[in-house]
This record gives sequence, C-alpha cells and structure tokens, in this order.
Amino acid sequence: MGETMPHWLTKQAQLSPDMPALEDEAGSSWTFSELEQASKTFAQKLASFGVRPGMHVGILANNEPYVIIAVHALSYLGAAVVLYNTKLAAAELNYQMDDAETAYVLLSTEMKDLTCDHSWRAGRMPLSFREVDEAEAAPLQLREEIDLDDVFTIMYTSGTTGHPKGVIHTYGNHFWSAAGSALNLGLHKNDKWLALLPMFHIGGLSVFFKSAIYGMPVLLMRRFDPQKVQAAIVNRGVTIASVVTVMLKRLLEELGNRLYPDHFRCMLLGGGAVPLSMLEVAKEREIPVYQSYGMTETSSQIVTLSPNDALSKLGSAGKPLFPAQLQIRNPGQDGVGEIAVKGPMVTRGYYKNQLANVSSFDQGWLKTGDLGRLDEEGFLYVADRRKDLIISGGENIYPAEVEGVLARMEGIEETGVCAVPNAVWGQVPAAFVVLADKQLNATEIEHFAAGNLAKYKVPKHIYIVEKLPRNASGKLMRHILSRWAEERNE
Amino acid sequence: MGETMPHWLTKQAQLSPDMPALEDEAGSSWTFSELEQASKTFAQKLASFGVRPGMHVGILANNEPYVIIAVHALSYLGAAVVLYNTKLAAAELNYQMDDAETAYVLLSTEMKDLTCDHSWRAGRMPLSFREVDEAEAAPLQLREEIDLDDVFTIMYTSGTTGHPKGVIHTYGNHFWSAAGSALNLGLHKNDKWLALLPMFHIGGLSVFFKSAIYGMPVLLMRRFDPQKVQAAIVNRGVTIASVVTVMLKRLLEELGNRLYPDHFRCMLLGGGAVPLSMLEVAKEREIPVYQSYGMTETSSQIVTLSPNDALSKLGSAGKPLFPAQLQIRNPGQDGVGEIAVKGPMVTRGYYKNQLANVSSFDQGWLKTGDLGRLDEEGFLYVADRRKDLIISGGENIYPAEVEGVLARMEGIEETGVCAVPNAVWGQVPAAFVVLADKQLNATEIEHFAAGNLAKYKVPKHIYIVEKLPRNASGKLMRHILSRWAEERNE
Repeated sequence: MGETMPHWLTKQAQLSPDMPALEDEAGSSWTFSELEQASKTFAQKLASFGVRPGMHVGILANNEPYVIIAVHALSYLGAAVVLYNTKLAAAELNYQMDDAETAYVLLSTEMKDLTCDHSWRAGRMPLSFREVDEAEAAPLQLREEIDLDDVFTIMYTSGTTGHPKGVIHTYGNHFWSAAGSALNLGLHKNDKWLALLPMFHIGGLSVFFKSAIYGMPVLLMRRFDPQKVQAAIVNRGVTIASVVTVMLKRLLEELGNRLYPDHFRCMLLGGGAVPLSMLEVAKEREIPVYQSYGMTETSSQIVTLSPNDALSKLGSAGKPLFPAQLQIRNPGQDGVGEIAVKGPMVTRGYYKNQLANVSSFDQGWLKTGDLGRLDEEGFLYVADRRKDLIISGGENIYPAEVEGVLARMEGIEETGVCAVPNAVWGQVPAAFVVLADKQLNATEIEHFAAGNLAKYKVPKHIYIVEKLPRNASGKLMRHILSRWAEERNE
Repeated sequence: MGETMPHWLTKQAQLSPDMPALEDEAGSSWTFSELEQASKTFAQKLASFGVRPGMHVGILANNEPYVIIAVHALSYLGAAVVLYNTKLAAAELNYQMDDAETAYVLLSTEMKDLTCDHSWRAGRMPLSFREVDEAEAAPLQLREEIDLDDVFTIMYTSGTTGHPKGVIHTYGNHFWSAAGSALNLGLHKNDKWLALLPMFHIGGLSVFFKSAIYGMPVLLMRRFDPQKVQAAIVNRGVTIASVVTVMLKRLLEELGNRLYPDHFRCMLLGGGAVPLSMLEVAKEREIPVYQSYGMTETSSQIVTLSPNDALSKLGSAGKPLFPAQLQIRNPGQDGVGEIAVKGPMVTRGYYKNQLANVSSFDQGWLKTGDLGRLDEEGFLYVADRRKDLIISGGENIYPAEVEGVLARMEGIEETGVCAVPNAVWGQVPAAFVVLADKQLNATEIEHFAAGNLAKYKVPKHIYIVEKLPRNASGKLMRHILSRWAEERNE
C-alpha cells in the first residue's frame, strides 16, 4: 500500500465547491461541486451495468466532457480506465482490448454509430455515454480515498513498430506529474488551462488531473482550430495551453502581428524539436514557449525548457522536473547515449508484458529508447529515437538533426527523414518534404542540405509530398516514411 | 522503500544554480549552488569527526545560516537530525538526547559557551559549528538520492505535561507538507519567505524545505522584531511570512495606518485563535492573513483558512490541505469531538514510544488530542486541547472560547484561562489577564464576562499578571497557568 489521500475530485469540491472546473467550447460549464456530483452519479449508473472495483473499463471517444466525467466515475468505482485512440482500426482495437482485458467499453455516441458492427465488440460490453446516463443509479458505495499505488489508467504507446504496449499509470504517477509540473511552472490563482490534445494521449488527459489537484478550470476543445485557440486565449482567460509543434506553427500564422494578452503565461510545447525560425517568431511575439520532452511512460512532460533559455539553448528540451532524474547511458564520443529517466511519475511498467518490462527497466530507471546528450549545464538535447537512428558507413545520423536543418530552408514547410537501405553504406538518409513554396525542387533542397550538413548526412533521396504521416498526437511516424521510401525504391 | 527522488538541494542547484536560496539579516546571501557547496563541504567535514549514515545528530542553536547548512549536510550523510529547543534546561536536554539516541550535538558558538559544563555533555560529542567548519573534509561519498520513507528529522513536541515525545519526520512528510502548502497558497516566481520562527520548531524549519523544493529564497531572521519585519516586507521583497498571533498583534501596531506593498501576499498565522478585533484591523490594512492549524506531528500547518473567509468564518482554522483528511471523532451534541487527521504529511509515529503510538494512532489516523467541530461547509473550529478542557458541573468549558470573549474587552491585552479545582463544581475557570489599560480591575472584567458568557463559563478567579507563560513558539502553556492558580489558592 502506498500513501493515501482523499479522492481528488471530492476533495477539490470540498475546498472550492463553486470554482469552475470545466468549460466546453459551447459555453457549458461545471463547478467542482457539479463535476463531483455528475461523476458520482455516473459511477452509480455504471455500477448498475455491473462495473465493479478492479475491472478494466475502456473509453473510446474524442474530447468531450463525458470523458472527464467517466474517468472520475471509474476512479470512484475503483476500476482502471483504459484509454483508446479513436483512430485505431478494428484489428488494433481488438488487440489492445484483449491485451488490457477490458470488460466494458464506453463510447461517445458518434463512436457507437461508427463501430457498432465491428468485430471488436465481441465478448465485451459496449456502452454509449448516453446509454449509461439514462440508466438508474445503483446505490454502490463509492471510494472516498485514493491509494497512490493503485492503478488509475492504462494507455497504449503510440508504438510505431511491433505491438503497442499498455503503459500503467498509478494515481501516484499522475499526482507526481502534476506536482512536478506545478513546481516548474508555478501555480497561480487565475490559471486556466486550454485542453485540446486528445484525451486518449497523456498530454491531453493529464490536464484534467492537474485541474482536480490544483483546483484549476480547464477549457476543453474538441479539436485544434487556430482561430478558436486564439479566441480562447484572448477572450476566455486561458493562461496555459498544451500544444505540439505543428500547432504552434499554425497559431503563429493566426496571431500575425498581434500579441497575446498579458495573462497568457505558458505555451507548453511537446511533439519534437522546434525550428529556430519558429522560436524567433514566438519570441518576437512575446509568447512564453516552454519546450518539453516526455512520453506516455513519464505521465507527460518530464523535461522542460523555460522561455528564458529557449533561444540560448536552441534545440534543447531543458532540464528534468524537480522530482525526476535523468542519465545518458553509454555515451559515444559525441556524448550521445540512451536517455534513462527515474522518478515517481515514471510508470512502474507495461501491463502483462514481462519481456518489455525486463528490457526497459534497470534498477528503477526507465530506458526510454531515445538518444540524447546533456550539455555542461545539464540541459538535455534529444537526438532521436534509437530505432530511428540512421547508420551510414559507420557514422551515426540523427534524423531530427537533418530535419532541423532542412526546416530552416526558405520555402520548406516541414520534413521527415528516415533510413533507406543502401548496398554501399548500409543505410543512407532519405527526406520527405512538404513545400510551402511549390516552385522549390529536390535539387535546390539537396544543394541547401549540402551547404549545411556533413556529406554523409545529406539526404540521398528527396521526395516532395503533400503531407507527413503523423499520429493523433502529432508525432511523426518514421516507420511509415520508411515504408514510403521502400515503395518508391521498388 | 518509498518513492525516490534526487536530493532536494542538489536538484535545485541544478535547476536554479544562481537563484538566491538564503539571505540573512546582515545582508549575506547564498545562491542554491553556493548553499549546495557549503552543505556538501560541511557534510564531509562532519564525516571527519565520525558522523555516519543512520546516526542521530542533534542541533542546539538559535536561527542562523549554519543550522540550514548543517541540516542539509546531515541529509547528504544520510544521518537523522534531532532539533532541540535552545530554552531547554540541562535535565530536559539530557532526557531528549537519551531518548533520541543522539550521538553528536552541533552547537552554535554561543550555546557552546553557555553549556560546555553541563551534565548533558556526558557520553556525547558536542561540536560547535565553527569547530566543524575548521576541520578537514573527509572524502566520504554523499547521498544524491532521497528515499521518501527515510527518517529526516526528529523534533520533540513542546509537550506541556509528562515527558516530551520525539516526532519522526520522513523526507516524505516534509515533501508532502511543502506540496500541500503550495497547492493551497500557490507558487509564484517572485516568492520570498520570511523565516523568523525558531528552526527547532516545525513552523520555522519547514520553510527551508519549501525553499529547496520550490526554488524559493528565504530571508532568515534571528528573532522577532516588528520593525525589522516591517522593513523586510517593505524593502526586501518578502511575499510570505510565517508568524504566530502575538507577533501579528505587534506587527499591526508597527504598521499603524500604513499598508504593506502589493507584493506581500500571505501572512501565515499559527499559534491559536485570533481575536476578531485583530482580524478586523488586518482586513482594514489589507493584510492577507491565513489562519492555520497544525502541530509538529503534521509537519506544519494541515488546515488553513484563506483571507477571503477570515471574517465570515471568524475563529475557524479553515479546511484541511489538499492531501489531508480530517475527522471529528465521537462528537457531542454541540458537534465538538476529537480532531483526527490523516495524510502523507502526518508523522508515522513517535520515536521508540510504542505506548504513545498505540494510543495516538488508529488505522492511519492521528488522534490529535485537540477538540473541535466542523461547520456545514467543512470549516474547522478548534475548541481546545482535550486536556485543557474545563468540566464544571458537567458542562464543558473551552478555555479558548472564554479567552476569545475577554480579548474583545477594551483595555485587555491578552488572557489565559485554565481550570481550578472546586469543591462544588469539580472545576471552575480562572483567567489570567494582561492589561493594556492599567486602570482596569477584576470586577470590571468579571462584569464584562458575565455580560457575554453563560454563567458557568464566567471566570470565578481573575488574576492580573504582567505576562502570560508562552513556550518558544508562542503557544500558551496552560499547565503553568494551572500551577499559578494553585499557588494563589494555597
């Protein structure tokens, strides 16, 4: 048994009953007291369908208030919540539901319509949010205390190769993530967090635990829309927003020559390296960008760079949060090695996956599979996913480095770099490029690369494409690039 | 084993090396990096005297920077710190040193001079801070990781009767106390905490753990001086100060008709109930007073009342902090029962005191021995220490209630109420009164009491005194009042 504390939502409803907890785009809102009541009632309705403590209950829904209510309701029941990506194909869903031993699946109405005939239904009880809401409440005793060692959520890593792994988050993991973030960003009475990342990803979901723990309102958005985000910051008192790099780019375009109001104090940025040009524009527009590094396994960001260091430490993800430790393992001559992390917000392991647990953990340290180095002041520079590393004639090439250079070229919107098999060198880099200026051609790009990169790092194949393959949280899926490259080389 | 995290001071020195950590009155200051270096060097010097992991090392000193350096140094060595009240007599010190199995005692130079011939020296090694500082550093490996379940400090409860008990604080207790306080008060980049309570009490010491965990500077004062506190708030950027009620009174006098600057955001108030008149003056002067309730066993405040509620919830200590739970056990018809608390900041027990542990803890709950009630909104009203309760003809009389009424009388500075044995009623209340207006007499006071209190609550004895007996943290020692009353009745 771990430390115990009062149930977060109940406690916050006692401390700040009339404080707004949740607003949606349409203007509906819930105070902490209302959210507590809604969640407790939903819990008792779920109980009437047979949901019981210790069960695993899936949620398959895009961002909407019901998801938050359902997550809190399941915690009142002592059931674990498994959050599924709504973009999964039926076979993928089937795999994840089997793997997580999901007994029930809660669906938004749109999901229910879309998927009611799918094979993954078999053997599990799908329930739409509405169906639950229309049921009678069963008078089941609800939990009023949380044990930090208990499992709260399971989320599958967006896993680009092989089978996805179910990351276990305890209540403690989520609490420590929220505490670590507060120690880094501070806690202000007027804070309001904009939640627009999908709640089936850790970056989206974690905002709602912060809300309950901090006593902070959240403005929930269904999907990213730069105009709506702009309006939320300017007119609805948003002080902090979590975004990924591609979103920041569009927000800067939307912002134009204007400035955000003074109350906006943090643009928390995940989803990979940011081009210098973008940071410079952000600085000019006085946007407090906090770059970060994290993953499902670390319950959200575990390393953050403050705006003060954004330009002087260009390309760095910053320093590990207060409760966290970071090591670079087996560094090469360039100082780059595998990033290992440790701390109370790091998952205790993958669900029912002894093999992954043995290979990923070492004496309490999680080996992330990412490559990086620390500078002399302790700032982290993430090089790349180890498996994305390109080894060409014995030289290491980090795709992110090549992408960073190409992103600086006038007329390039974004790029993705991957390895392509090569008879002479073993591997060579290939670049997929989305153009802002349609006049640009591959030869010019190659020329630019040659002027800015060691010869072996210059992409040997340059493909102009309309769009890069990204997953739901905006992460570049390099294994798809590799497949594209293969197809083009056949 | 509990959760592990990096050593607090090392970590903060990595995150904010050049941020000020500590200032003293004279104007000396240490950055986090300097404080880390000073503490690590001090640790290695301590090691040269034979201090080793797991040992208990006492500190006997008034507030000075060496105390902070020594506390951090002992944590680098993995030794537990026992903090002794400098006002203890030799026999009391002897008892506490035996009880805590203290192997070494660190002394300020003034203490060394005062006490070098005292009997408590026998069998233990007294070391003055200076002596340690002049020693050679031993190259002992220092701890760079903290296990939250490890013992960090032991402090004796100011225990007014019987033998004092050694309260064990783990690293986790102190961390959770700091986290709970931050969730309540918020965390601002410009925060600077004024530390003037003695560091051998939890209210004084806990500020320095907050400093390391938050990355926040502390201004250390040797003792309370209203003029100096006023100057620190106005000229030295203090945003938060911890004080006890008697200090607030003197600060209000010092302030006069002026206001504190806007940056001053919290006067955290411990040490018992506050008279309405004082709160009204504080409100008029726009001082953000946070009343609180806590004890050594809860690692500092565990219940706090925000300034917004200070007047509408007059006499309340507020609501339990986010990670904490509170119960009223066996309430009477008036709702008053024993206050029990639970949470990760609550001590796991008293050192080597099975009897006290069995009688004080019940399934994870600490029975505080204090009496109180909750109103319908969950605000705590502390009635009194159970052992201070006066039972007169079967009626309960809470000394604090009587004191609160008398404090409202024009011309009274402060009062202390206690029980006196009575042949008819069992006990009756007696009041000791310090006068502001020396013309006032006992008859007038009795008349005022009779007009504002039920007959059985009116003090049957009124004694005019020069001063009330208070311990080092400003708490009224009612057992001394009882002794005084006894002497006067002989």
